[in-house]
Amino acid sequence: MVEVGKRVIFHELLTPEEALNKVFNTVRIGPVGTEVVRIEDSYGRVLARDVYSGIDVPPFDRSTMDGFAVRAEDTFGADELNPVRLRVVGNVETGAEKLPSINPGEAVEIATGAPMPPGANAVVMVEYTKRVGDEVFIYRSVTPGENVMSAGSDIMVGELVLRKCTVIREREVGLLAAVGIREVEVFRRPRVSIISTGNELVSPGNPLGPGKIYDINTYTISHAVRSMGAEPIIMGIVRDNIDEMRDAIKRALSISDLVLLSGGTSAGLADLTYRVLDEIGPPGIIVHGLKVKPGKPTVIAVSREGKLVIGLPGYPSSALMIFNIIVKPILAKMQCMGVDETRIKARLAIRADGARGRRALYPVALVDTGHGIVAYPLPAESGAISTLAFADGYIVIPETVEYLESGDEVEVTLFTHQYVPSNLYIVGSHDIGLDVLIPMLPSFVKARVINVGSMGGLYAVKRGEADVAGIHLVDEETGQYNIPYMVKYGVNNAVLVRGYLREQGLIVPRGNPKNINGVEDLLRGDVRIVNRNKGAGTRFLLDMKLREIASKMGVSFEDLVKKINGYYYEVRTHTAVAAAVAQGKADVGIGIRAAAAMYGLDFIPLGWESYDFAIPIDRLDKESVKAFLNLLRSNEFKERLEKLPGYKVPSDIGSIVWKGS
Amino acid sequence: MVEVGKRVIFHELLTPEEALNKVFNTVRIGPVGTEVVRIEDSYGRVLARDVYSGIDVPPFDRSTMDGFAVRAEDTFGADELNPVRLRVVGNVETGAEKLPSINPGEAVEIATGAPMPPGANAVVMVEYTKRVGDEVFIYRSVTPGENVMSAGSDIMVGELVLRKCTVIREREVGLLAAVGIREVEVFRRPRVSIISTGNELVSPGNPLGPGKIYDINTYTISHAVRSMGAEPIIMGIVRDNIDEMRDAIKRALSISDLVLLSGGTSAGLADLTYRVLDEIGPPGIIVHGLKVKPGKPTVIAVSREGKLVIGLPGYPSSALMIFNIIVKPILAKMQCMGVDETRIKARLAIRADGARGRRALYPVALVDTGHGIVAYPLPAESGAISTLAFADGYIVIPETVEYLESGDEVEVTLFTHQYVPSNLYIVGSHDIGLDVLIPMLPSFVKARVINVGSMGGLYAVKRGEADVAGIHLVDEETGQYNIPYMVKYGVNNAVLVRGYLREQGLIVPRGNPKNINGVEDLLRGDVRIVNRNKGAGTRFLLDMKLREIASKMGVSFEDLVKKINGYYYEVRTHTAVAAAVAQGKADVGIGIRAAAAMYGLDFIPLGWESYDFAIPIDRLDKESVKAFLNLLRSNEFKERLEKLPGYKVPSDIGSIVWKGS
Repeated sequence: MVEVGKRVIFHELLTPEEALNKVFNTVRIGPVGTEVVRIEDSYGRVLARDVYSGIDVPPFDRSTMDGFAVRAEDTFGADELNPVRLRVVGNVETGAEKLPSINPGEAVEIATGAPMPPGANAVVMVEYTKRVGDEVFIYRSVTPGENVMSAGSDIMVGELVLRKCTVIREREVGLLAAVGIREVEVFRRPRVSIISTGNELVSPGNPLGPGKIYDINTYTISHAVRSMGAEPIIMGIVRDNIDEMRDAIKRALSISDLVLLSGGTSAGLADLTYRVLDEIGPPGIIVHGLKVKPGKPTVIAVSREGKLVIGLPGYPSSALMIFNIIVKPILAKMQCMGVDETRIKARLAIRADGARGRRALYPVALVDTGHGIVAYPLPAESGAISTLAFADGYIVIPETVEYLESGDEVEVTLFTHQYVPSNLYIVGSHDIGLDVLIPMLPSFVKARVINVGSMGGLYAVKRGEADVAGIHLVDEETGQYNIPYMVKYGVNNAVLVRGYLREQGLIVPRGNPKNINGVEDLLRGDVRIVNRNKGAGTRFLLDMKLREIASKMGVSFEDLVKKINGYYYEVRTHTAVAAAVAQGKADVGIGIRAAAAMYGLDFIPLGWESYDFAIPIDRLDKESVKAFLNLLRSNEFKERLEKLPGYKVPSDIGSIVWKGS
Repeated sequence: MVEVGKRVIFHELLTPEEALNKVFNTVRIGPVGTEVVRIEDSYGRVLARDVYSGIDVPPFDRSTMDGFAVRAEDTFGADELNPVRLRVVGNVETGAEKLPSINPGEAVEIATGAPMPPGANAVVMVEYTKRVGDEVFIYRSVTPGENVMSAGSDIMVGELVLRKCTVIREREVGLLAAVGIREVEVFRRPRVSIISTGNELVSPGNPLGPGKIYDINTYTISHAVRSMGAEPIIMGIVRDNIDEMRDAIKRALSISDLVLLSGGTSAGLADLTYRVLDEIGPPGIIVHGLKVKPGKPTVIAVSREGKLVIGLPGYPSSALMIFNIIVKPILAKMQCMGVDETRIKARLAIRADGARGRRALYPVALVDTGHGIVAYPLPAESGAISTLAFADGYIVIPETVEYLESGDEVEVTLFTHQYVPSNLYIVGSHDIGLDVLIPMLPSFVKARVINVGSMGGLYAVKRGEADVAGIHLVDEETGQYNIPYMVKYGVNNAVLVRGYLREQGLIVPRGNPKNINGVEDLLRGDVRIVNRNKGAGTRFLLDMKLREIASKMGVSFEDLVKKINGYYYEVRTHTAVAAAVAQGKADVGIGIRAAAAMYGLDFIPLGWESYDFAIPIDRLDKESVKAFLNLLRSNEFKERLEKLPGYKVPSDIGSIVWKGS
């Protein structure tokens, strides 16, 4: 249901195929013009005409060997014992312009690539000859045409060399050069205007005001347009204002062949976009949404002049997927190219639900486990930029499929051809020490880091998907770190490698205005805290400290936390805790010293925690894991780590402290 | 053995791995500098620095839903029957800068993407609320953090966002934009000078003198350099002259980071190249050839300043393969990139021999038979440009392998990522009518034409490799075309589809100076002929006519042809026959009228031959074959064909005239 002005219109959502058919039936999509370029500037361009050869290649009968040009008839019967003797009447070098001609009983010395002299029809390789004065002994007979490449045998005059719509790369430019063509007519690159809409957007490079975020889609879509050989025109950000929107679209239509909008998420903005896009017609809007999740807000309009305006979803990974399925085929048609996607097969890591009658698209992260590639579906409709960072491509779940099970084979359409599988998967708790270590790895190690928290890392190691998991989990009963969790969760396929120590404590504003000295102070009525999410190692630590206090006070843990203002105000990272304190949203939070240092906040130490690495036993032989461990144990890394505030290197760093069985 | 000046030096050939190790041990290969670009101009560039985030993403706690921002504690226990009632104290839009704060019992209306108001820690989706005046009923409880993306949960301040040496494409630029970065430091593209050497070379676009051919390698290598993200500098052609060569290499070294030579084939040129390359050191030449076939002439030298000069083989496909195995890894290292080759598995179509102790590289043409991909090895050491045209990639046969058998699985390294498998394989005799038909095919048909002669086409159909084979083979006994060959060679898996008629005859110079009127005249002593190769349909035709004459004259065929001057002067195409006549190399030849017309020659008709199409029965359902047949039968094609000189359309064009069983 779409509200346009006062009308309420019910529109059917279309499948991508239906939407594209509607586009192709409404307006003629094809090349937008041609231009002439020199062949050295033709890389990746598309031929606008069939190319025929104006010459024979080779242009003359050409020797393919060093030796003697002869009349084959004169050599018949020659062998090692009965050589034929011929008179040498000349010599032909490669590139020679004047040629001696030969008569019966004569030969001409000839170089590879040199033109055959008139009268000769074969070449005897130099290995089977002996030159004596102005005579040559021939020790092997040749047949007519032997060691000769005849004129036009490669390409003939008038032969079709390259077909219109061919993309010119290494080989194609070689064919053009071979027939002497220096300039070719190619299709002009389509110009594609890109407009981002939304009041919350700021262009990168400018300061962020409160409530604002950076515009991402302009740049991801611009690069996607380039990947299709088209020319992006960045129009900038348009706010939630009909005049601004109308002007931007009008300007974009006047200077480009295709206009791409990427949507703000507010309802008002959608209405406004609809209004302006209907104005550019007739026909105006022809597709009012796709039967795809995500992709419902996709809108396609056609201007009076027959130019397309396509509105993409607002979330970057959604916009990229819809670009793939809708814009790519259109840009390909505008250049007479095929859509050339790379697909690979993988097994699903976890179950992925269908979208009940809609087609579901899931961005997926690919992990090469060593026993095949596993695809992790990422949230389809999420504003998380990390989705973009981790998604190597996407999978499609058809309308009629309820769900795909973990282990099912799926086909992944890659976002770029240039997918280089990573060979070191580090999954677990985010850590600043790891951020120092990873850039120091040798270049053959392609590390991929996925921050899913300690417990997420532990499960990934148990399932054999991660090579390394960084974990910091305290056992509330013993205070011991990590090993109790390896045991409790039965991670018997792995070892625990000693990592390093991080200082945990209370993060308070500079100068500690509320005079907080310990966890007991969190119970004070005038103190509001920021907490970490459940499952975070830091949350385990705080709850352990609170249990101790509760037990001393003789109250239940549950009753105790009810007294804490902000106990349910949860954030998911160390830095988010520090940010909340820095922005005055809380008076105190618990986290690592490095996070406090980052925001210039004060820090009240509570103790040191162990940040260790769980590694599946069968990965200890993997080259990338060995490189990781060597680096972890190196003096170079230890020195860098000790410089981080609140980090300490234990003497047994890098040693195996626990082994599953 | 290499002769340098007066010294004779024996050098060991190296494997590609040994050669690269020698390079990397002799000179430090790495990035050649950096430059700063705006992110919108960063497509395909390589990061020169680790990139850390200066902000949290999102920069603030952000609602992920439209609804009401609340304190989760206030909603505990709420359900359909027991809604919680909260006071609405404000409204927050996306991008809002001023935020109302909430106290216990209060809520704020909030849009997706809008910042969370202070005091709120969760969002109730609008679907579970009912607004009544300045109050809202909440019908479902939320937990702390529900529908909220907390500040920094996606990317934290100080977090490593992208690692040095990352190639920037769609996703990477999105990450840069997300953290507000507008300019990035990237590695400068290496500048690569390209020099072609050889007296026989002419730059495309210029007229070809006698004995000359066009320079191909400059352009194929230039495009290969671009495919690696580097910047080619075309230095032009250098002749077989030491001063010219020395100047060109000196100039190239002064303006570029790497110099690529591609070699003329003459022995003198090789000596000269060696001399100049040893002068640029020390160290001078460090690799004197590769233990690879082709690739033996590959030479690598290092200048005093530590710049590399690499001499590649002269034949275009050999130069491209050696570029792949030697230059690509070096260019990759100069940009801190991986070598990202696409390999696919295929079955060998025919046996391929190893190179006895050397590694053998074969360019291969890939054919998708519908039952898997088949690789045709092409001659490794051939100057044929058609090798370049047909080679999709290459296979490697290790030093220790004697040969690979037809049907063996091989791994093909593709020349470009953008390999789009063809879906219509036309193999057989070259024909000008086909050159007209192919560009008229609908765009979904990706046709590949391989001209291997009629018999080659017939075998390809019999083996099920070709979709269509164009053949014109006359039965010497009956004079009937094509069908007898389908029977005789047992091509029972195929049908024969009627094609069209081509007029065969004698091609003579304009004005017919030797007054030739028929095949009998070829026996005259003053007439020199040009013949076609054995296996060519036209050769079959001539021999049939000659047999008739021999039988009339009562002599043997063998004795008859001995009387024909030029009977053994064989060329391989219709056009080559016409070219030989046009250039005065022969007085007469046999071929089709269209070839004579192309060269403006006179034509003495001998009769009409049938050029038909053999098609495997199981391909008649293939969409591309259906499109081919529909076009063959169309009036549009028939009209175009009838305009060609010496072509005639039979009434049953496109019908099946024979079917195997």
